[in-house]
Amino acid sequence: MTIGLPLLTARDSACCATVTGGALDADQAESIARVFKALGDPTRVRLLSLIAASDGGEACICDLTEPVGLSQPTVSHHMSKLVAAGLATREQRGRWAYYRVVPEALDSSARALLSS
Amino acid sequence: MTIGLPLLTARDSACCATVTGGALDADQAESIARVFKALGDPTRVRLLSLIAASDGGEACICDLTEPVGLSQPTVSHHMSKLVAAGLATREQRGRWAYYRVVPEALDSSARALLSS
Repeated sequence: MTIGLPLLTARDSACCATVTGGALDADQAESIARVFKALGDPTRVRLLSLIAASDGGEACICDLTEPVGLSQPTVSHHMSKLVAAGLATREQRGRWAYYRVVPEALDSSARALLSS
Repeated sequence: MTIGLPLLTARDSACCATVTGGALDADQAESIARVFKALGDPTRVRLLSLIAASDGGEACICDLTEPVGLSQPTVSHHMSKLVAAGLATREQRGRWAYYRVVPEALDSSARALLSS
């Protein structure tokens, strides 16, 4: 089962809002900040980069613990924040969880920052 | 006096690193995450958008408190985080502090997220 919460899609009030494209209302700012909050942790940034650099763009949680030097529950906690923010998807296969980055979510977040 | 800490410049180890461009080391991830942490708060996202939308791209702190509904010390605290992250500059003129967004810093952060 794949769990993912796509963020900043067309149905999202912040889909096309940018930081420098006009004064944002509270809802738009909340949507934008939610993703950046998930990205505002060095372990989570490393985890995303490790997953993106993995064969086939997919990584087993069993291969993520050693590079970041953290326990599996801690890595799992960080990954749940990234999945909740729509930045990664999670698929359980047998004993292990496998993760993929959602490039569209990273690109959407990037667009929110680009000068308009 | 203008205070600003340009981030993600050529002298920064994370200047050209991207989240999906290969496994990041701890220092690169730290540099990237630091800026996103500053952006991971809805009030700070709104403040940046309000400043960017102001006449001449500059806003007095005296004009920022009412739109976000917060006291001046609280707004000042949020702004200090944005200045420390290199996302805004601060200039004291007489009684008031004036802020500008640093578009290059937003663009650098955006590039760190774009698919490579």
